[in-house]
Amino acid sequence: MPDFELMRSLQKKNDTKIVLLVMDGLGGIPIEPGGPTELEAAKTPNLDRLAEEGTLGQTIPVRHGVTPGSGPAHLGLFGYDPVTYEVGRGVLEATGIGMTVSTGNVAVRGNFCTVDSDGKITDRRAGRISSKEAIPIVEILKEVEISDVSVDVEHLREYRFAAVMSGKGLTANIDDTDPQQTGVAPLPAQAFDKESKACARYFNQWIDAARQKLQSQPKANALTLRGFSTDPCLPQFPEIFGLRAGCIAVYPMYRGVSKLVGMELIDFEGEKPEEEFQTAAQHWNDFDFFFIHIKKTDSKGEDGNFDGKVEIIESVDAALPGLMEMKPDVVVVTGDHSTPAKLRSHSWHPVPTLLWAPATVRTDFEKSFGERACGRGGLGTIPATTLMPLMMAHAERLEKFGA
Amino acid sequence: MPDFELMRSLQKKNDTKIVLLVMDGLGGIPIEPGGPTELEAAKTPNLDRLAEEGTLGQTIPVRHGVTPGSGPAHLGLFGYDPVTYEVGRGVLEATGIGMTVSTGNVAVRGNFCTVDSDGKITDRRAGRISSKEAIPIVEILKEVEISDVSVDVEHLREYRFAAVMSGKGLTANIDDTDPQQTGVAPLPAQAFDKESKACARYFNQWIDAARQKLQSQPKANALTLRGFSTDPCLPQFPEIFGLRAGCIAVYPMYRGVSKLVGMELIDFEGEKPEEEFQTAAQHWNDFDFFFIHIKKTDSKGEDGNFDGKVEIIESVDAALPGLMEMKPDVVVVTGDHSTPAKLRSHSWHPVPTLLWAPATVRTDFEKSFGERACGRGGLGTIPATTLMPLMMAHAERLEKFGA
Repeated sequence: MPDFELMRSLQKKNDTKIVLLVMDGLGGIPIEPGGPTELEAAKTPNLDRLAEEGTLGQTIPVRHGVTPGSGPAHLGLFGYDPVTYEVGRGVLEATGIGMTVSTGNVAVRGNFCTVDSDGKITDRRAGRISSKEAIPIVEILKEVEISDVSVDVEHLREYRFAAVMSGKGLTANIDDTDPQQTGVAPLPAQAFDKESKACARYFNQWIDAARQKLQSQPKANALTLRGFSTDPCLPQFPEIFGLRAGCIAVYPMYRGVSKLVGMELIDFEGEKPEEEFQTAAQHWNDFDFFFIHIKKTDSKGEDGNFDGKVEIIESVDAALPGLMEMKPDVVVVTGDHSTPAKLRSHSWHPVPTLLWAPATVRTDFEKSFGERACGRGGLGTIPATTLMPLMMAHAERLEKFGA
Repeated sequence: MPDFELMRSLQKKNDTKIVLLVMDGLGGIPIEPGGPTELEAAKTPNLDRLAEEGTLGQTIPVRHGVTPGSGPAHLGLFGYDPVTYEVGRGVLEATGIGMTVSTGNVAVRGNFCTVDSDGKITDRRAGRISSKEAIPIVEILKEVEISDVSVDVEHLREYRFAAVMSGKGLTANIDDTDPQQTGVAPLPAQAFDKESKACARYFNQWIDAARQKLQSQPKANALTLRGFSTDPCLPQFPEIFGLRAGCIAVYPMYRGVSKLVGMELIDFEGEKPEEEFQTAAQHWNDFDFFFIHIKKTDSKGEDGNFDGKVEIIESVDAALPGLMEMKPDVVVVTGDHSTPAKLRSHSWHPVPTLLWAPATVRTDFEKSFGERACGRGGLGTIPATTLMPLMMAHAERLEKFGA
């Protein structure tokens, strides 16, 4: 992890523009040993040009061998060691849709589910009901009241919602209530420690009251909660690095983690790569640093859809000139972690990473953007947390250390 | 940083000879992406032979993205984490010319400058007066006396000198007096904390008294001070690694940092690479470890002189047989940091590093010494502080850890 105190003491201002383009779950593995990964199979003339003009490497999101969730993986990209700075999913999701999680409040991510007459789960995602179906049910949840605490609820996407409990002496060391299987009842909220027992009891009261109100729903007649968490009070990114930082992301989780580190969330319509790049162009003068997040590489990987992931990568490549014509000074293209279609899940594999910075870069021998080329690129195999200092350096935004 | 306690417990003695050859600011970047760096452009048949017989890698001087000054960068090469062990420039320079900075004394580096009748600086380096001109003026400074403390002054090079203040209760948390621009007066010495106020006051008294004595000088009629610092009490290199260590360096700064870690300074005439290598040969039996420092690679880089830096590298290569005929067991050739001619300054880029040790080395695929080859060499991308343990290991000077 970069030494934040060192960064604060070395950072300086100039007019450079830095872009961190994250294709979620970018890294892959070949279906057959020796075959191409998704990124290698994709036709990416624009990314290949950046690779040839820049330098490649591979980043380790958390620790060698450790598969990260999206929250920790993004914290790493922003320079925060994810083991030191743990942020719960509840806080990430709630913050991402604009809810406030003040110190002492407890946020949680909720899923609607379907239970049978015995209370046992028959569908962990309530038939994947649409947002249109779910929004009125979230309105019902908002009406749930219990004593001593208040619970704010907002819809996320489809069958998902976020809840924030406000009250006195709340602590969030509480286990998820999702049993991760069907045929059993949702678990009660259980505290891992004495301090969190009161908060778990309030949540169980709230769950019971909610179940009463939901019982007539055909699909979303119950709920599970996970990621109980409180405000992590993270050191603030703009202050550490001296950057006006803007976040261009569609999904709440990524907006959440960006907001928690102090980036400004840029509002925009659409979710295609070209729309995200256009948004950056429209706000080009307002920020020094743009975090641009592409979600669907990860979604296709999780679906096991190798060709679909290839297509998404190619669509990002095709849209890239719209970003490059803004003449950024430093561009990093990477993922937050790997999501190989072959594994249908996040993985621990190093993440292919491209650093382009025409004024200051040391080129290497590599000429195309792919995992194997990145494995022998000039950046080496480095922690994801080193990318922020490297981007700062290549933007000539760091003073010399010592005489 | 290597665990010094571990090194102390594992080190053993034998008859091997280790050479750490540092070409200051060795690392470069291409003028145009894809072109050669200075080291790649240089014709270096001898270094290429060592590269082919040895293994390559790239070292990170301080942290990824952090551009080091010369002092921190050399501490890193000697195995000391430069963030943990901060040493001020005053101490480095004063120690380098043989002055003693005892605990409680405060050392500072001084520049003569020229001021106009309003006391504003017209030349920050006093017309870059020669050593011959400066030495008598330093003699005048030696006569300056103030109450309660004594100030020892010695000439460094050209318009530069070092001063060491001895007295009671002196602490060195004091800002530089060099305003880093002309048209303004030198700044007074200002303490950053309460403890250093007395010391700053003494230095201001001394500056005033010195100005009185210098006022008739045509060029060097004033001075600026920077790098106020005290003895860092570093753990001692010969004791940590069990090595009789000799320093062959021309410039005070590098001699200073070597002396602070406990190396012996070897006196010699001349400053050409072949003269430095001859010096090593003459003292071959007196030491186990030779630190040999070549300055001009850095100077040419700072001048933006790509071809000049290439020439210096070639001159080192040409002189290298004079060193190799002594049959060292382990040779590392590296830089303390990068100084790309394109950037005209120190930089954060990894440093090309060559490890040659015929009895113990694992060779890699690389056959020439250059940045791109080092980027995919067998040593990988490693902290500079790991070079000392690696040299110790390749010299078979470390016991097995554990049973």
